[in-house]
Amino acid sequence: MAMATLARSVLVTGSNRGIGLELVRQLAASPQPPQHIFATCRDATGPRGKTLQELAARHPNIKLIQLDTVDLPSIRGAVQAVETHLEGQGLNLLINNAGVGSQATLQSVDAQEMLATFAVNVVGPLQVAKEFLPLLEKAAKDAGTEGLSCSRAAIINVSSKVGSIGLCLGVLEAPMYPYRASKAAQNMVTRCLAAELRDKGILCAAIHPGWVKTDMGTEQAPMTVERSMQGILEVLGILSQETCGAFLDWEGNHLPW
Amino acid sequence: MAMATLARSVLVTGSNRGIGLELVRQLAASPQPPQHIFATCRDATGPRGKTLQELAARHPNIKLIQLDTVDLPSIRGAVQAVETHLEGQGLNLLINNAGVGSQATLQSVDAQEMLATFAVNVVGPLQVAKEFLPLLEKAAKDAGTEGLSCSRAAIINVSSKVGSIGLCLGVLEAPMYPYRASKAAQNMVTRCLAAELRDKGILCAAIHPGWVKTDMGTEQAPMTVERSMQGILEVLGILSQETCGAFLDWEGNHLPW
Ligand SMILES: NC(=O)c1ccc[n+]([C@@H]2O[C@H](COP(=O)([O-])OP(=O)(O)OC[C@H]3O[C@@H](n4cnc5c(N)ncnc54)[C@H](OP(=O)(O)O)[C@@H]3O)[C@@H](O)[C@H]2O)c1
Ligand SMILES: NC(=O)c1ccc[n+]([C@@H]2O[C@H](COP(=O)([O-])OP(=O)(O)OC[C@H]3O[C@@H](n4cnc5c(N)ncnc54)[C@H](OP(=O)(O)O)[C@@H]3O)[C@@H](O)[C@H]2O)c1
Repeated sequence: MAMATLARSVLVTGSNRGIGLELVRQLAASPQPPQHIFATCRDATGPRGKTLQELAARHPNIKLIQLDTVDLPSIRGAVQAVETHLEGQGLNLLINNAGVGSQATLQSVDAQEMLATFAVNVVGPLQVAKEFLPLLEKAAKDAGTEGLSCSRAAIINVSSKVGSIGLCLGVLEAPMYPYRASKAAQNMVTRCLAAELRDKGILCAAIHPGWVKTDMGTEQAPMTVERSMQGILEVLGILSQETCGAFLDWEGNHLPW
Repeated sequence: MAMATLARSVLVTGSNRGIGLELVRQLAASPQPPQHIFATCRDATGPRGKTLQELAARHPNIKLIQLDTVDLPSIRGAVQAVETHLEGQGLNLLINNAGVGSQATLQSVDAQEMLATFAVNVVGPLQVAKEFLPLLEKAAKDAGTEGLSCSRAAIINVSSKVGSIGLCLGVLEAPMYPYRASKAAQNMVTRCLAAELRDKGILCAAIHPGWVKTDMGTEQAPMTVERSMQGILEVLGILSQETCGAFLDWEGNHLPW
C-alpha cells in the first residue's frame, strides 16, 4: 500500500456499492488519507446509499454527495457542493467509476439498450469531466509542481478489458455488444481528454479493474474488490507524463485499444 | 479496377450523396456490375434523392429503396423490398456507409449531440446488420464456396481514421468528441460482428475511405470521392479470411484500433 497521500482531494462516482465503494473505503483507511473524499452516488440519502452513509459516519473526511452522472443539474449541484467543501482549493482526482453492464447479444440487442448504455458509460464520464474541469484546472495550477500525476490533477475513467477492440477477436468473445461498444467509446473519450488536457497539467487515463466480484462482475469473478482496489490505488500512485492517455489494468499492464 | 464482379448483390446505405453515391455509381459503371445494386437512402422519392433517382433511371440493376438507418420499421421495410427483388437469393454485400459528422469540442459537446451521433454511427449499422442477417446468411450458405469474401457474404462498415483510439494522441488531435467516440464504438461493433459471424461464412471489416471531398469531408479534403472509391472497391475485392475483422484504409493499409 502506498504510504504517501494519493491526492489531497478525490471524487468517486457510483461509490455506493461495488468498486466505487471499495475505492472510498480503502482511501479512507489509508495511512495518510486524502483530506477530502467526495463519495458520490445517485441515492445519497436513500436506502441504496446506506452502506456508504455508515462509512461516512465513521470518517469525517468522507463527504457524501448526490451525483447522477446522466443528469446535468445533478452534476452541477455536485460541483457546487464540492466547491463549497474545498474552500478555494481545486479538485485533484476525479474517478469516473459509475457504469452499467449489458449482456445483450446480437439477437437481443435493441437501440434503446445501446443508447442507455452509452448514456451512462460514455456521456456520463464526459459530462462529469467537463463540469468538474474548472476545479481540476485550479488544482493543476495551484499544485506548484510540473509534470502530470494523480496528486496534481487527474481524470481516471474506469474502463474494461472487454472494451479493448484489439482483444475482441479470438480472445474475449462474449456477446455484450452495448457494453463493449460503450467502453471502446469511453476509451476514445479518455484519449481525447488526455490530448486536450495534458497541457493544462491534467492527466487522463483508463483503468481496467480486472474481473471482480461485484453486482456487475458477479460471484463468478476470480478476484475480490479488495485485491483489485489495492492494485488500482498503487497504479494511480505511479501514473505520470509517460502514462498519460494510457489503458492500464489493476497491475499496471498496458492493454491494447 | 477489378474485372470480376465484386458481388452479385450489394446494398449501400446513405447512397444519395457523398461516398455512398459514388460507390453506387462505380459499381454500376464497372465492366461486370452486380446483378442487384440496392441503393438506399432516407429520402428515396424526395428532392434529396434526386441525383440517385437519375442514376437509377439509367441503370436497371440499381434499385432505389427507402432506408433510414435509425428507424427500425424503415429498415424492416427495406429488408422486405430487397428480399422481393432477390427472388430467393441471398444478399452478398452490405455496406454500412450512412453516417453523420460532429465537430463538437469539449466545451460545446452535450449529451443530445453525443447520443444522436451514436444513434446514426453505431446503433444504425448494428441494426441494419441484424435485420439483413438472414439474407446474408442465405448468401453465405448458397455460395457453394468456403472461406470469406465480399462475393460470398460480407458486412463492411465505413469507419474513419479519426476513430482510431491509438492514433488519437499526438497524431490526429481534432476535437470531434462525439464523432471520434462513435467511430471507435462502431469499430468495436465491427469486431464483435466479425467474431460472431465468421463461422457463418460472413466477413466483417471496417474501412477508412481517406479524407475525401464530400459534404462531410468538405472542399478542404485532399482526395476526390472517385479516387477513394476506386481504392475501396479494389480493397473490398481482396478481403478474405485473413482480413476478417480488420480496419483497413482505401489503399489496404491496416490502421491501429
Ligand atoms: N466488476 C467487474 O468485473 C468490472 C470489470 C471491468 C470494469 N468494470 C467497471 O467498473 C465500474 C464499476 O463497476 P462495478 O463492478 O462496481 O458495478 P456495480 O457493482 O454494478 O456498481 C455500479 C455502480 O455504478 C453506479 N451507477 C450506475 N449508473 C449511475 C448513474 N447514472 N449515476 C451514478 N451512479 C451510477 C451504481 O449506482 P446505483 O447503486 O445507484 O445503481 C453503482 O454504484 C464500471 O464502470 C464497470 O464497467 C467492472
Ligand atoms: N468524407 C470523409 O472525409 C470521410 C472520412 C472518413 C469517414 N467517412 C465516413 O464515410 C461515410 C459517408 O460519409 P460522406 O463523406 O459521404 O458524408 P456525407 O456527404 O455527409 O453523406 C452522409 C450520407 O449519410 C446519409 N445518412 C445520414 N444519416 C442517415 C440515416 N439515419 N439513414 C440513412 N442515411 C443517413 C446521408 O443522407 P441524407 O442526405 O438523407 O442526410 C448521406 O447520404 C460516413 O460514415 C463517414 O463517417 C467520411
